[in-house]
Formats: sequence, C-alpha cells, structure tokens
Amino acid sequence: MKDLKLVYLDNNATTKVDEKVLEAMLPYFSQYYGNPSSIYEFGGKNSNAIKEAREQVKDFFGANSSKEIFFTASGSESANMAIRGILSADRSKNHLITTKVEHPCVLNLHKQLEKEGYNITYIGVNSAGEINLDELYEAVNDKTALVSCMYANNETGTIFPVEEIAEKVKSINPKTKVYVDAVQAAGKIDINVKDTQIDMMGISGHKFHAPKGIGSLYVKSSTLITPLIIGGHQENGKRAGTENVPFIIGMAKAAQLAKESLNYEMTEVKRLRNKLETGLLSKIYNARLNSSAANRVPNTTNIGFEYVEGELILLNMNDVGICASSGSACTSGSLDPSHVLKAMGVPFTALHGSIRFSLSRFTTEEEIDYTIEKMPEIIDRLTKISPFQKELKELRERKGII
Amino acid sequence: MKDLKLVYLDNNATTKVDEKVLEAMLPYFSQYYGNPSSIYEFGGKNSNAIKEAREQVKDFFGANSSKEIFFTASGSESANMAIRGILSADRSKNHLITTKVEHPCVLNLHKQLEKEGYNITYIGVNSAGEINLDELYEAVNDKTALVSCMYANNETGTIFPVEEIAEKVKSINPKTKVYVDAVQAAGKIDINVKDTQIDMMGISGHKFHAPKGIGSLYVKSSTLITPLIIGGHQENGKRAGTENVPFIIGMAKAAQLAKESLNYEMTEVKRLRNKLETGLLSKIYNARLNSSAANRVPNTTNIGFEYVEGELILLNMNDVGICASSGSACTSGSLDPSHVLKAMGVPFTALHGSIRFSLSRFTTEEEIDYTIEKMPEIIDRLTKISPFQKELKELRERKGII
Repeated sequence: MKDLKLVYLDNNATTKVDEKVLEAMLPYFSQYYGNPSSIYEFGGKNSNAIKEAREQVKDFFGANSSKEIFFTASGSESANMAIRGILSADRSKNHLITTKVEHPCVLNLHKQLEKEGYNITYIGVNSAGEINLDELYEAVNDKTALVSCMYANNETGTIFPVEEIAEKVKSINPKTKVYVDAVQAAGKIDINVKDTQIDMMGISGHKFHAPKGIGSLYVKSSTLITPLIIGGHQENGKRAGTENVPFIIGMAKAAQLAKESLNYEMTEVKRLRNKLETGLLSKIYNARLNSSAANRVPNTTNIGFEYVEGELILLNMNDVGICASSGSACTSGSLDPSHVLKAMGVPFTALHGSIRFSLSRFTTEEEIDYTIEKMPEIIDRLTKISPFQKELKELRERKGII
Repeated sequence: MKDLKLVYLDNNATTKVDEKVLEAMLPYFSQYYGNPSSIYEFGGKNSNAIKEAREQVKDFFGANSSKEIFFTASGSESANMAIRGILSADRSKNHLITTKVEHPCVLNLHKQLEKEGYNITYIGVNSAGEINLDELYEAVNDKTALVSCMYANNETGTIFPVEEIAEKVKSINPKTKVYVDAVQAAGKIDINVKDTQIDMMGISGHKFHAPKGIGSLYVKSSTLITPLIIGGHQENGKRAGTENVPFIIGMAKAAQLAKESLNYEMTEVKRLRNKLETGLLSKIYNARLNSSAANRVPNTTNIGFEYVEGELILLNMNDVGICASSGSACTSGSLDPSHVLKAMGVPFTALHGSIRFSLSRFTTEEEIDYTIEKMPEIIDRLTKISPFQKELKELRERKGII
C-alpha cells in the first residue's frame, strides 16, 4: 500500500470546510458585503440572508422559533454566554453543577466561578465514561442555578442522556436551568431540543464542516440571559458586533448538509469507525478500548496503547501522514494526561498512550485500511523501546501471547 | 450620466473584502483546515500562519511585541474584553470616564456598568465634534480605573487626540488605564501605539477590507486583563475558542494593504471626499456640514439637509443606487436621532436629515460625480414636500436666494 499524503482522523478537533459550504459563503465577501443593519437594499439583502440562515439553524436544533437562535463566534463563546448570562440574569442562586469530563470552556469557566464565590459540584463518570446520574440528581438543591452537561464527550464520544437529565433536574428544582454543550454531538447525532426541558444548547460550526469562528446558542424563549458582549442591537440585543454574514450563511448550509448526512454518519461512518477499532484492538496486543459505553457518537474511538508514550505515537503517525490526537486540541500543549480519561479511571499504564481517532463523512475505506496497516508497525516499534519491558512481558503472558 | 448600479459610500458601516484578502484566506477553508493547537504538521502549519499574521497585525498597531496582540471576533468584543478585563483584574477602583459620542459597544457597556454600581463620567464635545479635554482631565481622580475614548468618531470622522489624552491622564493618575477604540481610525490614519501611553486599543477587520467577524485587541504587556471568554489556552489564555484561521490570515493581509494605502487615503480618498463635500454644500442651499473639525479622517463627511427627513433621503438614494447612512449601522433600527450629533448640538432642523458619506480606496471619481449630480435632485424633491416651507423660505432669504 502506498503512503497516503494526509489521513485526517481528528475530526473532533476540527473539520474540513465542505466545498458546498465554501461555495455558499463566497458571494458574501467581496460581492454582497453590505452591513445587514443598513437601511438600503444592499444591506437588507444580507439581513434577509441571515434570517433564512437562522431558520435553517433553528431546524437543526429542532427549536420552536428562530428567535431562540443566537449566532456566536465559537462553541466556547456559546458556553460562556449561556453560563454567565444565566448567572447575571438571576443572582439569587449560587450553586452550579457540572461534570468532571466537560470541555475546558465549561470546566475552566466553572473553576473561575468558584473563585468568584460560587459553589460548584463536579459529577464523576464510570470507567465506560458514563455520568453518575444519581450523584447528579442528589446534588440538585434549591440554590442550584444551573446544571451544565455535555451532549457527547469530545475524547471518548460517550453520549450523555441530556434530555433525561433536564427532565429529572427540573422535577427536583423547576427553577434550575440546564445548559447542554452539544459541540461534539451536532452533526453526529440528532440534537433535537423539541419537547425537551433543555434551556440552552451550544454548538460550534467547525465541528461539522463549517469554518472555525462561528457558533450558535439556542436559548429557550422563556429563559432569560444577559448578553456577554454589549453594544449594538445585533442578535436581538443579546450579542453585539456586526454579523459575520458569510460564516452565518456557511453554518446554516453546513447544518443542512449535516442533517442530510445523519443517516450516513450512523451507518457508514460508524462501520468505518468500528472497522478501525476492531482492526487495531485485534492486531495490537497492548491496545485497549478506553470507552466501552453502549451509547457513543458514531465517529469516535479512543484507544489506549499500554506502556507507550502518546506524543511519540502521534509524531510517528505524523510521519506517515495520519492525524489524530491524544486529547482535546484545546488542552494540548500541556503534558498532563487527559482529565477525561483520568476521571474514567483509565489505568496509568494506558493513560499516557491514549489516542483519539475521530472520523467524518469524508473519511474513506482506503484511509481506514491504511491506518489499520500502519498503526501496528508504529506501536510495535515504540513498544520495543518502552522502558516497561517487564510489564509488557507480563501482559503478553496474561493474553497468552508467547 | 447613466445610473450606476451600486455607489457604496457607507464604508464606515462596513467595507468590501479586498480580493487580495479573499485570495489569502481561501486555502485555509478546505485545504489547510487543521486545528492550530494540534501536534501534527497539518495543524502546526496553521499555528505558524497565525504567528506570522500576529506579527503583521503587531506592525499595524506599531506594538512592541506580538504577545501584545489578541485576535477577537469584532470591535465590540475587543471593547468588551478590554473594559471588562481591566475592571475584573483590579477591583480597587470604581470610576470610569468615557465620552458622549462613543460607539454603542463602549457607551452601552458603560451604561450597564453604571447599573452594576460603577460611577461613570461622560465627557461632552463641542459643535465641531471635538472632545472637551479640560472636562476630561478634571474628571480623573484616584478612583478612576479607566478612560475609554475613541480614536476617530464613526459618524463625523473627527479625530480625538488619544495620545495626548493618555499622556495627560497618566500624569494625573498613573494607575488609570486608557482604552482607545480605534475601529474607525484603523486603515484611515496611522494608529501607531509605539511611544504612547495607551494601554489598550481595539480594531475591527471589516472596517478596512477584511471580513466581518474578526477584530483585534492590543494590550500593552504591562497591562493586566482577565479573559472575557474562558476555556482553552488559545490567545495566550486570554480568549478561548478555536482560532478563526482564515480570518486571522485575512485581517493580517488587510492590515498590510491598509498600511500600504495610507498615503492614498490621505491624498486621493481625501480629495474625493472634499470634492463630494464642497459639491453638495455648494449645490444644495439647505445643506450644512456637521463637523468642521480641522482634524478628521480623510474618508468621512457628515452633512445635514435641513428640514428634510433622513430616512426618506436614504430611501431615495437607494432608488438611484447610492448607499450611505444616517448614523451608525449599529444604532439603526431606532428612530432616535444620532447621539453623536445631539452631543455636538446640531440644531433640531438638521438633526433628522443628517447623512454620513464614507469613502474607501475603492471609491471612484465617477461615483463621486454621480452622487454630486443625483443628491441635489433628491434633496430638492424632498425639500418641496417638507412641512417646514415657512422656515425654508426664511433660510433662502438669509442665504440671499430669491
């Protein structure tokens, strides 16, 4: 098999902009460049284009009204806008609940809120990456302002039962609000908020083939938040700044394409992910699956290569053109092992050598075959130079390998 | 003269993306789409591209180090990040100073801060639109956390002496910080922060031919701010969210092009603006110049058409393809007359009929000639149906028109 130039298996970090999305955006840079707030037709045309886009994104969320949809510049902004917005709008409650496996934009914000005087309860997960629901429900009290929980984990792909969580939380305290970070769910599974009790949900365009720099926040019409960015009247007074017209158009197009591709995600992408997963687990004796959750997004697998260093694996993969990651891109640069895998109790022996592979609808069978061929060579080479030869020998013996 | 399809004289609202900017951005959507935080080359390439872009934007600001440059999603975000960031980093002072003619992103934020318990002093301007400097300096005291002042006014183009202001403010209270909203100055005049005492300066890409949805904030290395958007480590921990790689590249290119065009702005754009201004003032008896400031950006003129309604003028201009505005696009949708012109004491008779014309380096002589030809017809038609015929007759008599 000849070397492929680029095998991109890091779609949970970011995705390629779909050519159809790029095509939809292009006229809005140098041709239809009017300010949507302007009174003349050349501006009003863009105001109408945004209106249409908002309808499409509303449909993507399954929201009741396009007035519930706000455009932001990222999933991180959506989370900050939602969480800060709820707390500023109602200062009567000082307790928040979130999980130990959230994305940094939720987790680090909660750590900051703790410094500002809020009480935070961080809920743990089991070894499959599933949230401890009883622990969560027990934590809800009359001072609980907000429960923030991700829809799907970025590192393991584990899906959390956010609809059930919202329902149960509200049954305990109807005044507690629920924020769902759906950044890693959008485009992979149906994120329909209709008939749920979820108050707010955030998404990020660049995780489903729109560009980096555009996000959206759903806020149920009965839920009051204050703006994070104050200024002009844009976004119904909730988020100031001239609208990023091309990216709004682009995200709406990407949302439409993602909706159309959901079935493909659930079948073909899932088949390729499973092929990769079983291929690697069967060919590499010191490989272990880090998330055995029954409910996972179809594109993600997280595999620990025991007694091997993750950064070395990634650099060797880079040499043969395969892109993947050892954790969230947003936490990279740090040498700490993944906070998600730590919360799951992944053993130390596999923690540092864990690799997340995340596919997209553009991933091909050829790329998966190539990865299944190349990975055993890489892991074998690195295993041989591992300082843990005694432990590796024991592992081989346990597995019945001579 | 045949009708032109689009004469865009609203460049203070937004600008056309320069084709060279678009060209620079294009490869970063569907070709080099890696996450700059990723460890592999495909991501690292983008990290390097951002590094280069940050250098270019540093040069545009005249900053000492690229570590002083942060990318945001808008001028509004830059202002919110700077002002909130200063106040959160040091809660010992509760007084702020700003002007009555700021952009809504500064003015409305101050109104919100007032509700949160801060004391705010709003400084007025004279009839030329120039800031009352003595009033400003007298307001600075030992409780003054921040002085926020725009570099050039969006509606009149009046340039404020921000370097002098920073120096004088610091001489009164060295601990007071100075934020400069340079959104309407960038690309029109040199915004060099080198050797100034300005602590922070915000700009917005779409005002100088980069796309809408990208801004930047300069923060002097000795000035401490907290982040507005918390999460990942991006932007040196000061602004979370996956970087908008294409727009960052685009803004850097636009900054470079703007720097190269400054001379053209100061000569040709200024000549065309002056031609338009004198043309309209000489041909229309009920036209008056709203800003007589000696120091104005070269592209802006604000003209009041007495006893005529601004919205009607704009709609009639729209019919012949000329785009301009009656105030900031960010305040449009409101029927209130401009807060800037009100602060300048523009008489009621001209307040509602004031139009801002703002040119760019793409404005042609033909477009200016066309506007000088079309405007007198429009104003004449609307003047004839004005309900203020008695006052108009008196005006004609005063001006010696039979």
